[in-house]
Amino acid sequence: MRVGKFEVDHMALLLVFVPVSIVLEWVHADPVWIFAASALAIVPLAGQMGKATEYLAEHLGSGLGGLLNASFGNAAELIIGFFALRAGLIDVVKASITGSIIGNILLVLGASVVVGGLKHETQYFNRTAAGLGVTLAALSAIALVVPAIFHLVVQGHPEPHERELSLEIALVLFVTYILSLVFTLRTHRHLYVGESSEETDEALGVGAWSMRKSLLILLVATALVAWMSELLVGAVEHAAHDLGMTNVFIGVILVAIVGNAAEHSTAVMMAAKNHMDLAMNIAIGSSIQIALFVAPLLVFAGHVMGQPMDLVFSTFEVVAVAIAVAAVVLIAMDGESNWMEGVNLLAVYVILAIAFYFLP
Amino acid sequence: MRVGKFEVDHMALLLVFVPVSIVLEWVHADPVWIFAASALAIVPLAGQMGKATEYLAEHLGSGLGGLLNASFGNAAELIIGFFALRAGLIDVVKASITGSIIGNILLVLGASVVVGGLKHETQYFNRTAAGLGVTLAALSAIALVVPAIFHLVVQGHPEPHERELSLEIALVLFVTYILSLVFTLRTHRHLYVGESSEETDEALGVGAWSMRKSLLILLVATALVAWMSELLVGAVEHAAHDLGMTNVFIGVILVAIVGNAAEHSTAVMMAAKNHMDLAMNIAIGSSIQIALFVAPLLVFAGHVMGQPMDLVFSTFEVVAVAIAVAAVVLIAMDGESNWMEGVNLLAVYVILAIAFYFLP
Amino acid sequence: MRVGKFEVDHMALLLVFVPVSIVLEWVHADPVWIFAASALAIVPLAGQMGKATEYLAEHLGSGLGGLLNASFGNAAELIIGFFALRAGLIDVVKASITGSIIGNILLVLGASVVVGGLKHETQYFNRTAAGLGVTLAALSAIALVVPAIFHLVVQGHPEPHERELSLEIALVLFVTYILSLVFTLRTHRHLYVGESSEETDEALGVGAWSMRKSLLILLVATALVAWMSELLVGAVEHAAHDLGMTNVFIGVILVAIVGNAAEHSTAVMMAAKNHMDLAMNIAIGSSIQIALFVAPLLVFAGHVMGQPMDLVFSTFEVVAVAIAVAAVVLIAMDGESNWMEGVNLLAVYVILAIAFYFLP
Repeated sequence: MRVGKFEVDHMALLLVFVPVSIVLEWVHADPVWIFAASALAIVPLAGQMGKATEYLAEHLGSGLGGLLNASFGNAAELIIGFFALRAGLIDVVKASITGSIIGNILLVLGASVVVGGLKHETQYFNRTAAGLGVTLAALSAIALVVPAIFHLVVQGHPEPHERELSLEIALVLFVTYILSLVFTLRTHRHLYVGESSEETDEALGVGAWSMRKSLLILLVATALVAWMSELLVGAVEHAAHDLGMTNVFIGVILVAIVGNAAEHSTAVMMAAKNHMDLAMNIAIGSSIQIALFVAPLLVFAGHVMGQPMDLVFSTFEVVAVAIAVAAVVLIAMDGESNWMEGVNLLAVYVILAIAFYFLP
Repeated sequence: MRVGKFEVDHMALLLVFVPVSIVLEWVHADPVWIFAASALAIVPLAGQMGKATEYLAEHLGSGLGGLLNASFGNAAELIIGFFALRAGLIDVVKASITGSIIGNILLVLGASVVVGGLKHETQYFNRTAAGLGVTLAALSAIALVVPAIFHLVVQGHPEPHERELSLEIALVLFVTYILSLVFTLRTHRHLYVGESSEETDEALGVGAWSMRKSLLILLVATALVAWMSELLVGAVEHAAHDLGMTNVFIGVILVAIVGNAAEHSTAVMMAAKNHMDLAMNIAIGSSIQIALFVAPLLVFAGHVMGQPMDLVFSTFEVVAVAIAVAAVVLIAMDGESNWMEGVNLLAVYVILAIAFYFLP
Repeated sequence: MRVGKFEVDHMALLLVFVPVSIVLEWVHADPVWIFAASALAIVPLAGQMGKATEYLAEHLGSGLGGLLNASFGNAAELIIGFFALRAGLIDVVKASITGSIIGNILLVLGASVVVGGLKHETQYFNRTAAGLGVTLAALSAIALVVPAIFHLVVQGHPEPHERELSLEIALVLFVTYILSLVFTLRTHRHLYVGESSEETDEALGVGAWSMRKSLLILLVATALVAWMSELLVGAVEHAAHDLGMTNVFIGVILVAIVGNAAEHSTAVMMAAKNHMDLAMNIAIGSSIQIALFVAPLLVFAGHVMGQPMDLVFSTFEVVAVAIAVAAVVLIAMDGESNWMEGVNLLAVYVILAIAFYFLP
């Protein structure tokens, strides 16, 4: 209860950046400040969205609740992506997808494993569930690798059909995601039951919420995230330029951290309480949701909006995702973790972040 | 007995395409029809060859029988490859090797895991045997990656020695294959014993065969496969052109499915009966046989025939094999399978097939 | 005792090449002879260094001893690398790093698994310890892949920042190495205790040594390795040219075998005695030490000496390390080994060696 309460208060402090962003935008302040303020504002909003979704999901029963969680669990990333797509910032959209995938399985999981491992010599988790997780994560990596290699091979060809290829691959990913929901929510749901809902509620600090309150919070937070995302996207190019960073670095590292900060704190908290299954589930599950649900939706949206959004990620993004997936496979396949495995994940994240920073 | 019988009848229907192909060839019909008819004719012939080999192998004892199985188990692919090689269709030869490898470990195994998984919540198989299988499959991938990367690195160099490189690598693969036979048939054969031969016979529908009948079927089917392969290869270029497909797509997807249809139906049947060890063995074993036995033999044959057959596969073929092997490693290493893992394998296959289709 | 004694005598024979090298250098003999003699001289010297380090490490207690082992375990490679760096032979330095990594995990481990597997049907080792080993080895592969891909991506860019990237990645590797020592020597050291020190002493043939003798041997052998390395490096270019080999082949295959011959014989001996944990530890541990300790130190040294040493390895070297790590992951993750797995590792080594040989 205490941890939860503290967490809410902690979040509440950052909510001050919602009005701050609006004021800064209104007075046409330096885009760097608007970028920073709206980014900080999204952190607690995404956190509240996540908690409200979690609360509603649990009280709607496993079927409908699971679906809600599966479609709304990364709504913040989807909204940011949508506004970036509308603004034509295709490279930022792709970079934030890449960044969310590698951020969740390297930074979030790495930090969870280190924090959990400092308190518990060896932590255990369900190998079958973790196995499906990393296999789906690998599928995402493959879905990114194929169009990138295709792009390299067909370079210079007059009619490369890359958009059709991306659209069809996005469809395959989307169908696989739907089937994975059937697996986790229906045929093999017993693999994913671990925690009682009271414990999770308490850990999340939503023990005293009601359905009504949750729904209200979800709606308000979603609306505000949309507003903040519009400010963030509007400021990103100027901010990147002024900070001497590339759009890709901003997307891969900063936007991804902002969008996943809530998952981050929850996963670390769960790992510290030795609920490693939940921590893995949050980190890997979030990556998978981004790759198999958010990314295809953005490809479909790009197709409808006439924005040239495909799945042809840059060479370095593809390599980064492949490396991240390989690292998490090594860590997750044996059903055990210790702090050194977390250090390895973080080391890989830092190496990739350095490379993205220096990338011209 | 019923399943077996039905299977034989089912096959028997397709045998009508043997005379059909011959007539079509004789009247100089449209190559697309000759291609289709001879492809359909090979399916039941390859199936009969497989069954006869299996029957003979079982009744010759594990030593000689294992050797027969190991050398004749993919004779159909070898014969098709040989005729394509003689006709100078090196890209079709390579594409059918690639396609057989990815088809067996993604399509055949994927379908088996899905069908088996729909009937049984979790299926189990011997991890050590599966481990050796995927390790040998990984070796095949490496043997394909090395010459391709070598090719990229030495591009433009006057004297690239690629033929020598391929010949020596083919030799290493061949020796490894021989040693793997020593492992499976001699030093560790207990790992591969699962099924009684009566059960397998019944499942294959060869319960009532005799040695004499099997040998006769094997000889006749082999001769007919050779004839049909010659027709198939003679029609492939025209057919590809008329269908608006590339030689590579035809080889990777169509020829490979035709050559492996028999393995496909047997593996799926075994998985449905919860003999997951046998299903894995057929799918992965067939891939390995193609890579470590059929491919080297075709390289040696090309060397003797003066056809420039090497192991320098195209970038996309190498990537496809590497992806397929990575996917099967993830699925096979834990000794368990469920239907969602099969869906993943099929999703990877579909993604690769789409990419091969759009490849110019 | 007998094995140990025999081993010492065996080594002693090669020590004759120490004076031989000096004489050959003095009379300005053909560089091929100087190269061969100094290479042969390094083998027993590196062996003596290794044994003395091991003896001192054991008798200094696990803390200080572990540190000594961790920093001096691959001193021969470090010394050879340092002289090659001073002579500006950056490609030889990098090639010997690559060669030590792939040599240890393919050749040394492969030979150990084969020899051990011929005597014991299945050998077992601690999966957690092996898991950390291969994860760290994978981290090394990643640290090599990232700068190489970066290099490909930024090619032609005026200010590529590759040196900074390498320096920062080297720092991350170094810090990870220090943390891995904390893991193995402190928080999880119980995973690495297997053998009594008497048994190891006997196996190494140092049962009758004293602290004083060990320290003396260590100092003398180190000084002589430094001398021999200088001769080796001075002769390498002429030798490579006269032998019709590239600098890279010499570095990857010959220099690496010379520098790791001692680990090789010890690991094989341990595997034959069914101490598979120790054999894995030596082979994989040595690779990790090269990648996370020797390579960063050489990058730092290059930075100080003004030699352009970075972590941008050639495409083929990166592919070779990635392949080697993938192969060892497949072999080591299940905690079991058999002779066929060793054959696979050796087959991969031979394929890579052939490719390096033909590389222009």
